[in-house]
Amino acid sequence: MKRRTEFNLIETLFAPLTRGIPEALGLKDDAALLSSSPGHELVMTTDALVAGIHFHANDPAELIGRKLLRVSVSDLASMGAEPYVYLLTVVVPAECEETWLEQFAAGLAQDQDTFGIHLAGGDTVSTNGPLVLSLTAIGKVPAGKALRRSGASEGEDIWVSGTIGDAALGLMGMHGDLVALGENDRAALEGSYLLPQPRVGLGVALREIGRSCIDVSDGLAADLGHVCRASGVRGEVQFDHIPLSEPARAAMKVDPRLAEAILNGGDDYELLFTASPTSRDTVLRAARNCAVNVARIGQMRNGSGVVIRDVKGAEIDVTTAGYTHF
Amino acid sequence: MKRRTEFNLIETLFAPLTRGIPEALGLKDDAALLSSSPGHELVMTTDALVAGIHFHANDPAELIGRKLLRVSVSDLASMGAEPYVYLLTVVVPAECEETWLEQFAAGLAQDQDTFGIHLAGGDTVSTNGPLVLSLTAIGKVPAGKALRRSGASEGEDIWVSGTIGDAALGLMGMHGDLVALGENDRAALEGSYLLPQPRVGLGVALREIGRSCIDVSDGLAADLGHVCRASGVRGEVQFDHIPLSEPARAAMKVDPRLAEAILNGGDDYELLFTASPTSRDTVLRAARNCAVNVARIGQMRNGSGVVIRDVKGAEIDVTTAGYTHF
Repeated sequence: MKRRTEFNLIETLFAPLTRGIPEALGLKDDAALLSSSPGHELVMTTDALVAGIHFHANDPAELIGRKLLRVSVSDLASMGAEPYVYLLTVVVPAECEETWLEQFAAGLAQDQDTFGIHLAGGDTVSTNGPLVLSLTAIGKVPAGKALRRSGASEGEDIWVSGTIGDAALGLMGMHGDLVALGENDRAALEGSYLLPQPRVGLGVALREIGRSCIDVSDGLAADLGHVCRASGVRGEVQFDHIPLSEPARAAMKVDPRLAEAILNGGDDYELLFTASPTSRDTVLRAARNCAVNVARIGQMRNGSGVVIRDVKGAEIDVTTAGYTHF
Repeated sequence: MKRRTEFNLIETLFAPLTRGIPEALGLKDDAALLSSSPGHELVMTTDALVAGIHFHANDPAELIGRKLLRVSVSDLASMGAEPYVYLLTVVVPAECEETWLEQFAAGLAQDQDTFGIHLAGGDTVSTNGPLVLSLTAIGKVPAGKALRRSGASEGEDIWVSGTIGDAALGLMGMHGDLVALGENDRAALEGSYLLPQPRVGLGVALREIGRSCIDVSDGLAADLGHVCRASGVRGEVQFDHIPLSEPARAAMKVDPRLAEAILNGGDDYELLFTASPTSRDTVLRAARNCAVNVARIGQMRNGSGVVIRDVKGAEIDVTTAGYTHF
C-alpha cells in the first residue's frame, strides 16, 4: 500500500470532485463559502454509513460512494430541494486500500454528474476501527416552498413513487434468504438495495402540488407514521394498492409473510407524499413528466397512527415500527 | 445500560439543543432549512474526531463535546464568520454509556450558549468500532468579506493571537512527558489542549483589517506554509517573537528542543493572519477590544516557503511539516 497523508488524499482524490464549484475554494481554505441566492432557502441533511453495519466491506466501493450520495440526495428530494453541494467526512482505517478509495471517489464523481451536486469540503481522518463515511448534502429550494412532514391534512390522498420493498427483499437475498426465487429476480432486488433512485425531479414538481412529503428510508409504515405524527392525522393504506415490482410479486407468491419486510424494510428512497383529491390528475401528469410511476395507496383520516388493510379490509399487524438503528 | 434507539437519543439528548432555532424543524424533518440572509455568504466546515486517535476515551465527555464544537467554530473564525448552526453525526459503539452521551450533550449545550451556535440536524448511527464524532459548522459572513488563506502579499506583517505551543506541550504532558515541569504548569498546558479558545470576535474584526487568515491547527509552521502556498509568498518568522505562555517558557527552559513541538505541534486554534504595516495600530486596537493578545511574529517576503529564525538570525530547521493525520 502506498503511504498516504491527509493532504495527498485530499489533493488526488477529493479536490478533483470540486471542479466547477468555486464555493469549495479548491479545498484549500478552512471552509467552503456559499453565496446566498435571494429568495431561496438551503436544505441540509447528514447521513453516516459504517462498514459492517450499513454496507458490507466487500460491496463495490463505487456503489458505496454512489449510495452514500444518493441517500442524502433523496432527503433533499423529499423536501422539494435541488441538489447543490456536499461536504464529506471519510474516517479511514490503516488497512483500507488506496484503490478502494479511488473507486469510492469514482462513484461519487459519476453521481455528482447525475444529480448536479458538487463536493465543497470535508475532513479525512484515520481510525483504528471500521471505515465510516459521513456526508452532509445541501440543496436549494425557493423560500417557503419546502415540502414538510407536517403538512398533511384529513381527506388527502397518500401517494408513493416507484415500487416499495425491493431494497428490503434485496438485502434478504444478499443474506442468503429468498432461495426459492429465480436468480434474475434476486439480482434485480439486490440492485435496488445497492443503488436507490432518488426522486429529485418529482420532489421539485411536488413543491406546488404536494401537501406533505417524506422519503421512505425507515420503512413505509414507519415513515408514514412520521408524517402522521408530525401532521396530527391517521394514515389508512390498502396493502394491495402498494406498488410492487415483478420480482417482489414473485417473492410474495413464494412467501406471503414477506409483506412484513415490504412494509417495514426501509431503504426504498421513494417519495411518500400527500395531495388533495382534486390534484389527482396534476400529480399523475407531474410524475409522467419525470418518468416516474406514482400510486395512490390510501388516505389521511381524522385521528392518529397508521393502519394497513388487506384486500378484505382486515387490519394487517404492523409488528415493528421500522428499522431501529440500535 | 438503558436500551436506546436512534429516535429516543435524538429526542432526549439532541432535540433540546435545537431550542430557539426554527431552522432545525425540531429534528423532525428529513433535513434542516436555512433561510438565506441577503448580502451574506455561508461558511461551512467539517471536522471529525475518533476516540483513541483524536481524544482519549477517558477524557471528560463534556470537554470532548466542547472541543469538537470549538475546533469547527475556530475554522469559522479564521474566515471572519460568525457562528450560526451546526449538524452533528454521532457514531456510537454499543458499549458507550448513556451517561457519556448525556455529558457530551451537556458540553455542547454549554458552548452553544458561549458561541451563539445551535444544533440544526444530524445523524446518529451505531458502530462495532470506536466512537466517531463529526460536526459540520455553518457561519455567516457579509458577502465578499470572508478572510482567505490566499490574500497575503509581500511586505505584510505576520500576526498571531494568544500563545502558541501550549496544546502540543499539554498533550506531551498527558503522555507522561515534561516530568521536570511543575504540576500547575503541566495542568495549565493540558487545559489548553483540552479546551481551545476560538477567536470569533477577532476574526470578525479582522474582516476589515486582515489580508489573509488561517487558524493554527496543523502547527504554526505548517499553517503558515498553507498561507504562503495559497498566496504565493514567503513567510519569515522570528522564533523569539512567537508569543509563549509562562508554562511554555518554563518547559522551554527545561528543554530547549521543545521549540520543535511549539512550531509543529498544532491544536492551538489561534488565528495566524497578515495585515499591512500601516494597520499595526488598528490591529492592536481591534485585538484589545476583543480582549485578545496579538503579536507580530514576522513578515511576508517575495518567494515561497517558510523560514523561522532564531535570535541570532540563523535558520531553525523545521523538520516536520505539521501533524500528518495518517
